[in-house]
Parts: sequence; structure tokens; C-alpha cells
Amino acid sequence: MSNPLTHLDTKGQARMVDVGAKAVTERMAVARGRVLMSKDTLSLIIEGGMPKGDVLAVARVAGIMAAKQTGSLIPLCHPLPVSAVSVDFRPDPEAGAVEIEARVKTVSQTGVEMEALAAVSVAALTIYDMCKAVERGMVIDKIRLIEKTGGRSGHFLREGEQPWAES
Amino acid sequence: MSNPLTHLDTKGQARMVDVGAKAVTERMAVARGRVLMSKDTLSLIIEGGMPKGDVLAVARVAGIMAAKQTGSLIPLCHPLPVSAVSVDFRPDPEAGAVEIEARVKTVSQTGVEMEALAAVSVAALTIYDMCKAVERGMVIDKIRLIEKTGGRSGHFLREGEQPWAES
Amino acid sequence: MSNPLTHLDTKGQARMVDVGAKAVTERMAVARGRVLMSKDTLSLIIEGGMPKGDVLAVARVAGIMAAKQTGSLIPLCHPLPVSAVSVDFRPDPEAGAVEIEARVKTVSQTGVEMEALAAVSVAALTIYDMCKAVERGMVIDKIRLIEKTGGRSGHFLREGEQPWAES
Amino acid sequence: MSNPLTHLDTKGQARMVDVGAKAVTERMAVARGRVLMSKDTLSLIIEGGMPKGDVLAVARVAGIMAAKQTGSLIPLCHPLPVSAVSVDFRPDPEAGAVEIEARVKTVSQTGVEMEALAAVSVAALTIYDMCKAVERGMVIDKIRLIEKTGGRSGHFLREGEQPWAES
Amino acid sequence: MSNPLTHLDTKGQARMVDVGAKAVTERMAVARGRVLMSKDTLSLIIEGGMPKGDVLAVARVAGIMAAKQTGSLIPLCHPLPVSAVSVDFRPDPEAGAVEIEARVKTVSQTGVEMEALAAVSVAALTIYDMCKAVERGMVIDKIRLIEKTGGRSGHFLREGEQPWAES
Amino acid sequence: MSNPLTHLDTKGQARMVDVGAKAVTERMAVARGRVLMSKDTLSLIIEGGMPKGDVLAVARVAGIMAAKQTGSLIPLCHPLPVSAVSVDFRPDPEAGAVEIEARVKTVSQTGVEMEALAAVSVAALTIYDMCKAVERGMVIDKIRLIEKTGGRSGHFLREGEQPWAES
Repeated sequence: MSNPLTHLDTKGQARMVDVGAKAVTERMAVARGRVLMSKDTLSLIIEGGMPKGDVLAVARVAGIMAAKQTGSLIPLCHPLPVSAVSVDFRPDPEAGAVEIEARVKTVSQTGVEMEALAAVSVAALTIYDMCKAVERGMVIDKIRLIEKTGGRSGHFLREGEQPWAES
Repeated sequence: MSNPLTHLDTKGQARMVDVGAKAVTERMAVARGRVLMSKDTLSLIIEGGMPKGDVLAVARVAGIMAAKQTGSLIPLCHPLPVSAVSVDFRPDPEAGAVEIEARVKTVSQTGVEMEALAAVSVAALTIYDMCKAVERGMVIDKIRLIEKTGGRSGHFLREGEQPWAES
Repeated sequence: MSNPLTHLDTKGQARMVDVGAKAVTERMAVARGRVLMSKDTLSLIIEGGMPKGDVLAVARVAGIMAAKQTGSLIPLCHPLPVSAVSVDFRPDPEAGAVEIEARVKTVSQTGVEMEALAAVSVAALTIYDMCKAVERGMVIDKIRLIEKTGGRSGHFLREGEQPWAES
Repeated sequence: MSNPLTHLDTKGQARMVDVGAKAVTERMAVARGRVLMSKDTLSLIIEGGMPKGDVLAVARVAGIMAAKQTGSLIPLCHPLPVSAVSVDFRPDPEAGAVEIEARVKTVSQTGVEMEALAAVSVAALTIYDMCKAVERGMVIDKIRLIEKTGGRSGHFLREGEQPWAES
Repeated sequence: MSNPLTHLDTKGQARMVDVGAKAVTERMAVARGRVLMSKDTLSLIIEGGMPKGDVLAVARVAGIMAAKQTGSLIPLCHPLPVSAVSVDFRPDPEAGAVEIEARVKTVSQTGVEMEALAAVSVAALTIYDMCKAVERGMVIDKIRLIEKTGGRSGHFLREGEQPWAES
Repeated sequence: MSNPLTHLDTKGQARMVDVGAKAVTERMAVARGRVLMSKDTLSLIIEGGMPKGDVLAVARVAGIMAAKQTGSLIPLCHPLPVSAVSVDFRPDPEAGAVEIEARVKTVSQTGVEMEALAAVSVAALTIYDMCKAVERGMVIDKIRLIEKTGGRSGHFLREGEQPWAES
């Protein structure tokens, strides 16, 4: 593995690497994660006394807004203007989980995998926040990159996984 | 389960619940999570060509700063002045993981579990960002509350787990 | 009118006035405003092809989050930890308007009228943003303080108006 | 009216719509609004014991800075780099009002009407904040788009209104 | 010198130190600095073709707003609610400089010297930004704490210096 | 000196000047400054009981993150996407100082001298914050532009100074 950790310079000090010579191209990333919870909590979210979907509506907004803050949150991440963000949810009653998928696009010099991962993370934290009064033991789990296109590093598609159909 | 999702009002609409009548007390929360990665990537972080610890030093700062931004990131989370934040790491070469633990304190009317979970999440995202050039497949995993003290809901200690000794 | 503009010092220069000697008390403010629009646009929001309420759900979240950012947006406004925020909407089909009301509480040394007014303003801007593709001519109108309690200046209730019942 | 609310996807869920295929062109927007107040308050602002213009100088800065924060405040608004922002005021002693006009430009894939409307809104809130000690009953009113150029939707000029001459 | 760098734990890792046990008391800090420039530039600011004081009016607002952002800018700095901020300027034509002084107060568990120093720094950067078209060689200089009161560490008054009279 | 202060319009009011017609080119800026301190404090930073470099590691991250926030901090500064940021330190034991240099690049319509100066300023403030428990009298000094390339105004190199070799 000869590939260096490019965020560190030759003395091992942190820096924001130079992307000024990279091409401005369309780039897309899809990330996914989930919040594990009891079936009772999941029921409250999707069909309980609560109007369907409101927890998820707030979490969706939080995830979209977080994608726009990624460059402020992650120290060495390049700020970039996202051109599209969507966040979707799929309840998985069998596993006792809400699956979260974020899809982010840009036309820029760097990719948007951090934006997609940040959107999933903050959507998950928001679900936790809104349900923690009924269950403190929820777990945020398996946040990962599913697909990435555009840019020099080419197409990444996580083995055995597919992005959800674009809504 | 008669306990409502208190972030939703009687019409199921999102709101920031009123904590004005709660006591100002010392509150503490510990959260934990991990980033799964190949042993090669882990080696690069802890002993590779890179000076030991710099990836983790940046991730530590990112986690601490994120704890202070929690009220801006999570829509219905109360803003509060944190009085102490620490973020620690334990490489687990066997599992191929970096374990992350955040400990947050406040003297306030609400707890700091969201701050601790946000610190772990952003520290994990920062590790991902700094190592993604060598491994895109890393997974952020098992972000969870370990312990919580202070406030009306009493002491929470996740079954079978203990916070690390305070450094 | 002997009352000075207290944000300006004796030389007329801007400053954040000293509230350090004011009592920490519970304070509440209610503000209201509206977005004027065509009846067609209003129908699209409340009953059109779109699921009921989603525009308003996003605007509600935006208003709540804006209340927390008020101290960053308004130069001489004191930052303070809000203890409760709610944002409600009432479509007024006859007038062709969505009415917006925000209610904010704190336990602090200054009042929260700016937080309530900012919440209404940003909720209104969000409605505009989400509907501007169908109508650019909407007007954000009559943003005003309805009620204010707590603090030395006493109870303010706008003549001829009442806050909506708390949800 | 077949035109959809483009911020909502086919299931009515919020998303940031994809502008990645839109042309990068110069775009401009002018918005206007006003703060209604008593003539006494207006006098204090423009000629009273206070040096002329200081309230408005602070409000101008607040409006300009808000234009740059629009993408963070409005959940589904695209972040974009503004290339010019100005905020102007015209006292209207007869009506008992300060008129506010903001003009924003960008070279980007989306328009800047939200930036102009946000600049007017925050300038108005700042005037309210700085004068509220003398008059709590002020009203922020008639915030609206005056003109918009650039982009696919073509030229918008509000009927019966003209932007002020550019200073 | 037995006093440790308290921001580093026993392993030398960064952390936000625990102030939860410190007393909530009134605390004040005054900081000062200056921007060195040619006499021509200074004249333009204070009496040139430009209306007197506008550069300084913008810099004053920038400094006040920066004091409120200090906890976000400085990684290990505790967030706290400032209760008063003022920023003043004194042109020094002989030295070719604008002197800047910031005074910040809080009622909190930690001091506000960082807030005062940040206010001076950002006011100075703003002066540089607004004048750089006429002189790129300006120097921001001698940013230092002048006085500090409140808290366990007692009264600090820099030898040979006095804060300006409070305006 | 016929050159106007371009941030002020013909009436002397603040505005963000229009850069929409400027060419998008690669632009670079290097700024430098220093923190003066006692030799004891300097020793604690570089070789004391503390692991070498941790204060500087935190200050480096703070400076890099500040470069990304420049457009939010400085009222009339254009927001722009930085493409590279690095912050380096050189202890100067003889002078009792830590020298700080920041280098910022962008491909944009305006230069990045404000970003470089802001990075130096916030790195310096962070060093002050982390060492103030041992020495309150430190001074942040001589923050200045060293070099600037790209853009219409051509190459600026401060007389008698050279940027450090790029790491």
C-alpha cells in the first residue's frame, strides 16, 4: 500500500490538500446507515399515536442541512457548493431499524462522500434525539459509502450493495 | 408504552420541548463508537510512515468542536453551554477498528447525551475523511450512549459496558 | 420621549448593552406574521397533489433552528439559551395567506422577542423558497410582536390581539 | 396549474432539487421591505440625539452578512457564492417607515432571490432590535421580490415597481 | 513554573477542561491591538472623501459579532453567553495606526479574555479588508490582554497600561 | 492617492463590491504573524512535560478551519471555496516567539489574503488560549501579508520577506 494519507504533509502535519488542479466535474455520492431500536419505538415512529412520518420529516431536514455544513464540521474537508441533496428512510420492522440513505451531488473539484456520510450521521442523531425519551439504548450503526461517481478515482460501488432508486 | 415522543406536540408537530422548569444540575454523558477499517489503514494511523497520532489529534479537535455545535446541528436539541469535553481513542488492531469515546459535562437544565453522540460521530467522520484516500470502504459503527448521569431520568449505564477511565 | 436607543452609546456607536445586572427570570415572547399568496398556491400547500403539511413541516423546523441562531444573525442581540420553541401555522384561505406564530421561552437575563421574530421571519422565508417555483410574487407581511412576559419592562400584549392557544 | 412544488419529490418529501445541469450565468435579484414605526422613533433614527445613520449602518452590515448565510438558514436553499451585495435604506417620514432594499448578484447555477429576501429580513430585524427599547410595536412589512434577472425563468419585474437606482 | 497547560490532559491530548465546579461570577476583560498603516490610508478612514467613521462602524460590528462566535472559533474555548461587548477605536495619526480596544463582560464560570482578544482580532481583520485596495502592507499588531477581573485568578492589569474610559 | 476604498459606495455606505466580472483564476496568499511569550512558556510548548507539538497541532486545525469561515467573520469579504490551506509554525526561542505562517489557495474571482490572515489570527488566538493558564501577558504580533499571486492586482511580495518553503 504505497498510497499516502494525503491529508498529512511530509512532516505528518494536517493540511487541506490542494485540489486546485483537479477538474470541475459532476460528482455524486450515496451513503447509508441505520438506527437500531426496539420494535415499540419503531412503531411509534411509523404508525403509533404520532402522525406518520413527522420524526422522519425532521430528520430529513436535519440531514439535508448537515450536508451543507460538512465543510465547517470536518476540519480538512473542502467546502463545496452542493447542487442536490436527498435523504430517504426505510423502516425495517424485522430488524428493528430505520435505514437512512443520503444522495448528494455537486459540480466541483472534489467529491461529496463526506457530505453524504454527514447527512446520514446527522439524520441518525436527529432520530435518536427525537426518540430518546422512550429509548436511550438506540444504536447508530453501519454508516458507510454505497456509491461514488465522478472524479479521478472513478466509480466506487460497495460490493453487494445498490443505492435505492432515486425518488 | 405510555411515554410520548416528547418532541412532538399533541398534533404531532415538531417543537423544542420546554425545559424551563427543570433543575439546573450537573449532568454528564459518555458515548462511544468505532470506525472499522483494514489493518493496513489502522497501521498507517498508529505507526505507519505518519507520525503517531496526528489523524487522531485532528479527529479529537473535530469531536470537541462538534460537541459545541450540537444545538445548531440537531433541530430540536436545546442549546447549552458545555463545561467539559474530552474525546479519546483506542486502536483495536484485532478487530481492525479505532474505538472512540466522548465524555461531555454541563451544568444545565438538560442532558448532554446528544453532545457526546455528536462528538463521537464527527470524530468518526474526520477519521474517515483523513483516511479515505487509502480505503473508501471504512464503516462508522455502533455509536451509542454508554453512561448518563444527572437530571430527572436518573443514572443510565448501558448493560455490560463501562466508560473508560477518565484521562 | 426621553428613552434612549440603548444599543448606541453616548457617542452613538453600536455596542451590546450590559445585561449582567439584570435578573435571571423566565421570559416568553410570541410573534406572528404571514405569507400572502394566491389561493392556488395555498391549495397546493394544504391539500394539493402534495401530502398535506410537508411545506409547513420544513418551515417549522427552519423557524425553530433560526430561533437558536438569533444571537449570530442580529449584531447586537445577546446570545441566550432558549428553553422552548414552537412554530405554528394557520392557513387563511379567504385572505390567501399562511399565518405563522412562534412562541419562545428562556430563563435568562434578556427577553426573547428577537428569537420569536426571527423564527417567524425564517419560517416565512422557507415557505417562500419552497413555493417560489409556482409563484414569485408572494409577500411576507406583518411580522410583529404579539405578547411578551418576564423582565423589567413588564407584560406587553399587542392591542386587539391574542396569542393562539398553546399547542 | 400543472407546475409542481419542485422542492418536494414525487412522494411529497423535502429535498434539495438538482441544479447541476443548469447553466452558470450571472444572476441578480432585488428585494424590498419596510419597518413601520412611530414618527418619533423614525426621528430618533434619522436626526435625533443619535448621530445620523448608525442604526442603519449596523442594519446594513447585518443584511449583507445574512445574504451570505442564506444557504444555512433556509433548509432547501442551495448554497452559492454571492459576488455582490448592497443594502440601502430610505426613511419615509410620512408613512412612518424605513424602506429597505437589498440587491444581490452571483455567477452561479441558481438565482439569488432568497439571498435578497434574507438580507432585507435580517436588516429589518436588526432595526427592530436596535429600536425596541423605545417602541415594541414596530411591524416588519411587505417583504417582496422586486426584480430578478438571469436564469431560465427569465426576467421578473414586479408590476408597478422599480428597483432603486444602484448606488 | 509548576503550572500545567491545563488544556492538555496527562497524556498531552487536547481537551476542554472542566469548569463545572467554578463559581458563576461576573467577569470582565479588556483587550487591545492596532492596525499599522500609512498616513494616507489613515486619512482616508478618518477624514478623506469617505464619510467619517464608516470603516470603523463596520469593524465595530464585526468585532462585536466575533465575540459571540469565540467558542466556535477557538477549539478548546468554553462557549459562554456574553452579557456586554463594546469595541472602540482611536486613530493615532503620528504612529500611523488605528488603535482598537474591546471590552467584554459575562456572568459565567469562565473568563472572557478570549472573547475580547477575538473581537480585537476580527475588528482589525475587517479594517484590513476594507482598506486593502489602497494598501496591502498594513500590519495587525500588539494584540494583548489589558485587564481582566473576576474569577479565581484574580485581577490582571498589564503593567504600564490602563483600559480606556468606558464609553 | 486616487484609489477609492472600494468597499464603500459613493455615499460612503458599506457594500460587498461586485466581483462578478472578474476572471476565475488560481490565486494564492501567504500571511504570517507570531505569538510573543516567555521562554518558559515556549519550552512547555516545544519540549516541556507536554508531548511535543500538541498545542501547535490544535492551533493548526483551528487556523485551517478559520480560513473556511472567513466569509462569515469579515462582513464585506466574499465567500469563496478554498482549494488548499496549510498552517505552519516555527518556534523562535531567541525571540521568545512562535512564528505562524498560513498559505491558502483558491480558483475563484477574488483573492485569499483575508483567508490567510484569518488563519494566522485564529491559530495565534488558539495558542494564546491553550497557554494562557501559564502566561496571560503573551502578545499576538505582526500579522501581515507576505505574498499574493493571481488576479488583476498582480504579484505582491513584501519587501525583504520570503514565504517559507512549501511543506
